[in-house]
Amino acid sequence: MILVLTPNIKLDSDTYEQLVAHLSRLQNIQWRVHHEQGTEQTLTEIYLIGNTSAISVDDMKSLPGVERVVRVSEEYRVLGRHRDDHRAAHFDYRGLRFGQDTLHVFAGLCAVDEPRHVEAMMKALRDNGQVCTRMGAYKPRTSPYSFQGHGKDCLPYVFELAGKYGIKVIAMEITHESQIDEINGALQSSGNSTGILLQIGTRNTQNFELLKIVGRQQDFPVLLKRGFGITLTESLHAAEYLASEGNRRIIFGLRGVKTNMADPHRNFSDFAYVPVVKRLTRMPVCIDPSHAVGSRSSGPEGILDIMHATAQGVIAGANMVLVDFHPEPAGALVDGPQALLLSELGQFLEDIQIARKAYEDREALAECYRSTKETT
Amino acid sequence: MILVLTPNIKLDSDTYEQLVAHLSRLQNIQWRVHHEQGTEQTLTEIYLIGNTSAISVDDMKSLPGVERVVRVSEEYRVLGRHRDDHRAAHFDYRGLRFGQDTLHVFAGLCAVDEPRHVEAMMKALRDNGQVCTRMGAYKPRTSPYSFQGHGKDCLPYVFELAGKYGIKVIAMEITHESQIDEINGALQSSGNSTGILLQIGTRNTQNFELLKIVGRQQDFPVLLKRGFGITLTESLHAAEYLASEGNRRIIFGLRGVKTNMADPHRNFSDFAYVPVVKRLTRMPVCIDPSHAVGSRSSGPEGILDIMHATAQGVIAGANMVLVDFHPEPAGALVDGPQALLLSELGQFLEDIQIARKAYEDREALAECYRSTKETT
Amino acid sequence: MILVLTPNIKLDSDTYEQLVAHLSRLQNIQWRVHHEQGTEQTLTEIYLIGNTSAISVDDMKSLPGVERVVRVSEEYRVLGRHRDDHRAAHFDYRGLRFGQDTLHVFAGLCAVDEPRHVEAMMKALRDNGQVCTRMGAYKPRTSPYSFQGHGKDCLPYVFELAGKYGIKVIAMEITHESQIDEINGALQSSGNSTGILLQIGTRNTQNFELLKIVGRQQDFPVLLKRGFGITLTESLHAAEYLASEGNRRIIFGLRGVKTNMADPHRNFSDFAYVPVVKRLTRMPVCIDPSHAVGSRSSGPEGILDIMHATAQGVIAGANMVLVDFHPEPAGALVDGPQALLLSELGQFLEDIQIARKAYEDREALAECYRSTKETT
Amino acid sequence: MILVLTPNIKLDSDTYEQLVAHLSRLQNIQWRVHHEQGTEQTLTEIYLIGNTSAISVDDMKSLPGVERVVRVSEEYRVLGRHRDDHRAAHFDYRGLRFGQDTLHVFAGLCAVDEPRHVEAMMKALRDNGQVCTRMGAYKPRTSPYSFQGHGKDCLPYVFELAGKYGIKVIAMEITHESQIDEINGALQSSGNSTGILLQIGTRNTQNFELLKIVGRQQDFPVLLKRGFGITLTESLHAAEYLASEGNRRIIFGLRGVKTNMADPHRNFSDFAYVPVVKRLTRMPVCIDPSHAVGSRSSGPEGILDIMHATAQGVIAGANMVLVDFHPEPAGALVDGPQALLLSELGQFLEDIQIARKAYEDREALAECYRSTKETT
Repeated sequence: MILVLTPNIKLDSDTYEQLVAHLSRLQNIQWRVHHEQGTEQTLTEIYLIGNTSAISVDDMKSLPGVERVVRVSEEYRVLGRHRDDHRAAHFDYRGLRFGQDTLHVFAGLCAVDEPRHVEAMMKALRDNGQVCTRMGAYKPRTSPYSFQGHGKDCLPYVFELAGKYGIKVIAMEITHESQIDEINGALQSSGNSTGILLQIGTRNTQNFELLKIVGRQQDFPVLLKRGFGITLTESLHAAEYLASEGNRRIIFGLRGVKTNMADPHRNFSDFAYVPVVKRLTRMPVCIDPSHAVGSRSSGPEGILDIMHATAQGVIAGANMVLVDFHPEPAGALVDGPQALLLSELGQFLEDIQIARKAYEDREALAECYRSTKETT
Repeated sequence: MILVLTPNIKLDSDTYEQLVAHLSRLQNIQWRVHHEQGTEQTLTEIYLIGNTSAISVDDMKSLPGVERVVRVSEEYRVLGRHRDDHRAAHFDYRGLRFGQDTLHVFAGLCAVDEPRHVEAMMKALRDNGQVCTRMGAYKPRTSPYSFQGHGKDCLPYVFELAGKYGIKVIAMEITHESQIDEINGALQSSGNSTGILLQIGTRNTQNFELLKIVGRQQDFPVLLKRGFGITLTESLHAAEYLASEGNRRIIFGLRGVKTNMADPHRNFSDFAYVPVVKRLTRMPVCIDPSHAVGSRSSGPEGILDIMHATAQGVIAGANMVLVDFHPEPAGALVDGPQALLLSELGQFLEDIQIARKAYEDREALAECYRSTKETT
Repeated sequence: MILVLTPNIKLDSDTYEQLVAHLSRLQNIQWRVHHEQGTEQTLTEIYLIGNTSAISVDDMKSLPGVERVVRVSEEYRVLGRHRDDHRAAHFDYRGLRFGQDTLHVFAGLCAVDEPRHVEAMMKALRDNGQVCTRMGAYKPRTSPYSFQGHGKDCLPYVFELAGKYGIKVIAMEITHESQIDEINGALQSSGNSTGILLQIGTRNTQNFELLKIVGRQQDFPVLLKRGFGITLTESLHAAEYLASEGNRRIIFGLRGVKTNMADPHRNFSDFAYVPVVKRLTRMPVCIDPSHAVGSRSSGPEGILDIMHATAQGVIAGANMVLVDFHPEPAGALVDGPQALLLSELGQFLEDIQIARKAYEDREALAECYRSTKETT
Repeated sequence: MILVLTPNIKLDSDTYEQLVAHLSRLQNIQWRVHHEQGTEQTLTEIYLIGNTSAISVDDMKSLPGVERVVRVSEEYRVLGRHRDDHRAAHFDYRGLRFGQDTLHVFAGLCAVDEPRHVEAMMKALRDNGQVCTRMGAYKPRTSPYSFQGHGKDCLPYVFELAGKYGIKVIAMEITHESQIDEINGALQSSGNSTGILLQIGTRNTQNFELLKIVGRQQDFPVLLKRGFGITLTESLHAAEYLASEGNRRIIFGLRGVKTNMADPHRNFSDFAYVPVVKRLTRMPVCIDPSHAVGSRSSGPEGILDIMHATAQGVIAGANMVLVDFHPEPAGALVDGPQALLLSELGQFLEDIQIARKAYEDREALAECYRSTKETT
């Protein structure tokens, strides 16, 4: 059960102390306090744990300082959408809003290789009005003998170039907790020139220890990819590991599942689950068409499969697109064959706008039918 | 190797006889003649089989009566898109064109149960300007103790009502060759009031004997569903069984694959393969969102997952939508839980129009970028 | 609900007529009579269908001519093991007993190609004391352009050679009902020189029309393979299609499932389900290690993976082994790479005997522990 | 390329210095030295990395101090079986030999819950002559709200009881590097009463950072489970992460894969790959029948499916069995439904002996046929 307190309540106020006194008298109930620092206000929530079925919602609502009460179901306690649950489905970071109602494109390098490629990429993004990117420094690879990413060595120039080209947020995968410190250190050295969205990849979706540690820090929001060999339910439970430790600024990423049925694509695109994740939880949903499709094949009308898959995710309401580009795919150290060219960035972004417009028209149509129905 | 002859060539003409004389002299080569009766002309193709690698395209092009020559690759000889292959990617039936460039909606009953439901359905279709439907008479069911469809008994009233409400084509699944005769008989009794698109379901995708027999008849075009537990490649080979027996009026249907990764949907939507099928073959592509999604769940914006999946297929270029509706889903004998309501038909069709419009805009955008590139 | 009547009851006896009279008075109940002709007696069972939950087992037991009563659960009505169900888990054919307590090896050609290969195979079998084989005449192939088997043309010499070498039963796949007549005709021409176990392959497991027709004939027992892309439950329901039409002489075949997890094997061996099928139904269980493994790789101790897989099935109680051999694998038209050599037949059979002996020892051990437990 | 040096070679010897001098002159070649401390001798191997294709095996063989040379293929450089590769397929730990030729049973608690359960388990093991067990202290769970194991708090009494009952090796899962220190600390406090086999579970198979850290320590051998949603190849590459960091005392664990085809078992048993792993690598192979089967169902002969699966693994050459037992399964905090009872331990161990005996007989049979063949 969640008690949503009146905004900006002070922990040393009388109201709060009275509330705590009441809660202390409840039998077999522990509680945990969570503060969400927004742009304009601080939201405080108290999570009651234990035998909450014996407690009435009305009793709790009547306690001092309590604005609303949400009785959570067992699944996805923090992130889930529960009955009469009007908690926010968005968060702010570096001046951008990430919500179930927004759309951001993170085009960039799967793996950072050379400074000139990073610069070419960021320049192209700025020239196309983009302020987000993806840059891979730490690369989990199937074989220990493959290139593992440049790691912390590349961070200084990546962050400096981000600042130079106005990139506000970089999605960057991490595979170990120590990398958070490395990133934080390099960011500070760069004068906080940009922001970071910590990405947890599909091989670490059930690396629960990493999730707990990332969930405990509040510096960076998190992009959690679904596990490519586990169910959606299991992947959403993994997100709950992050949230239950305190960090709820989470975007959930779809990137396809691993099965031979995927052939001739690399993975089996799971973008049909965009509306499912949005219904079950309050997380914005990201799609990764590059890893889902994994090739530069195109349909007979000359449109790349990756663009088709992107349009499919966006027309169903996706909130973020993570996509591989590269100035010279043939020379890329990781996943070159699936990278789009800088010369394709313009069409890619316009293509997305068409699909986004269609999604908004579909939403308006649904609203129109709903209101007609309610009137009659 | 395929020799495409000059249109309307006569088999008793001198030209044709000279051509045959030439072909007879080729070593280790057999051939097969195929006639495609279009609205305006008859197209004749000759398939050379055997050691064709020893034959030059230029030699064949110079033979009397030969307009074009296509050297086929091993895969999908008849249906595939080969190099310099400009054969048609569409066919006509009952006055409708089914091609990789058209879109038709087949909304209807998964299983015919009662005449009044059939009539309610067809009336709603007509009122919404539709001329196609789906009607299941023969139902393959996992258990022998489940309802197996009304079979030939329901055909008379289904066809009569189709005629009454202007339905031009009914997609109808068959599970045995004898049902073709039953359908043909009932159609004739009804005065050929409508047309039939024979559907071969996912459990029979590799029922090769049925494919061969259906491929030999030319009365009806065929909708072949992909096998839910086999690869796309294997399913396309199955289509080739139909085509190699003579019937090339085939629509290929995507309907999701069977895996626990699909949860909470019934099957795992495979609509990312719409452009793949269109690239590999010349078949129009159908999507079946009802069986892919299998539930009436909806996203937080109030749009059904089935509608989202449909939009995803259409924005990537799908040419046909097969979808379950039912006047009283609670009373449906098969798959009631996934049926849409007649009251949702209007929104469903408008939603599709938005997605189709987006596809056309995307095509135009791609064309625009292509021509710019070619100019520069 | 099943009424098992006293053995050899006559349908024109007073007892039977009294029974029928009683049954006729039951409300909302239909019934079906099934006769099972054994070597020594005829067993008659009456299946009550409809609202049987309202009928008491004791009432039915007291009716004239009724020896036992089995209340069936919903699943696998005919083939399932129900509470207090002591119906047989075996059948006889051509003097051989096929049961959950026996073991037969069917080594032979995946596809019949040349008479001399058939003869070499059968001679080797006879020389090794074998009386069963597999011989493929009708081959379902992924591509229509692949070799489809010699069909009825090869039946005369296959059957004649079977007679010559004392082969009692041949497992032979069929893909269409018409092939039953072809087989029956050729068998008669050969003077019924051998017996046939009709095999229904994995691509036809849910070809329900074929199952119904094969289920209606009583000439041949049936080997039904599990579907490689469907669940075990669905495959067992498919067996029930055969049984509910009258033919219960069914062996259920495990042959691996289709998934990329199978790599480097061809399919993913499912022999862990031998005890599961034996627990859920009364069918003997066949394993097909050739199609499960699909290669001639061997472990470091020099034992072929196919032999390991076979031993794994047998030590868990498998009742039949279907396996590909070929005198000249390099020249085989189908699945040569997975065929064992005639020179390996001896070791293969001895290897199976070691595993079978281990199974019997394990059974005895379990019995020993059970009786100790019951005594104490 | 691997240079296997003469045993017990000293790094300050002239021979070694001459060798190093030679290697230093090779163009574009780096090398890494690995020492393997055995009971009787120290083995030193030098791994040449870089453009080794330009180097001849014979040249290297002629260098001072080099006993043998192995040219490795790309895959599984350290752990793989390469041509003419006679490196050991076993290691020693706490006086036990773990090899591709031995068999050890690790029966125990999936999760430690109470000291009395740990004691009951260990006493039963000792009474049955066992010296290995499994004890879970750190449990990765799908939901953050499930019991996560008692962690380091339970280590003192687990290790003390192990010492009391003569348990030499405990398989214990870890999910984070910090747990190695916790285990080491508790072990020292207990006076090194027992040994630990560090287990890396299926959710961490591709947690490469954990693998690297575990690979760098030499205190404990490692049991690496295959990933339940990745291919065998990918899982073997993960083992190579451990080995390439220095720790080659690795046992590879099969535990079934995750697919709905597994139903009614929990996972799909992959024990057909026991010979495959032994052929591709030199690691001993463990099977985990408890997680593969996941239920206490039994066949009609009264043998548990878990025992059948175990026998299947062992008859194909498995070297270790990891299995869940519990004194009171109904009260177990994790995976109670799949635990065997202490009263079943005797039968379980005897059942394994039957299967192991069968494996050895099969090996002897193969050897017999091989030698006959070579003679003739």
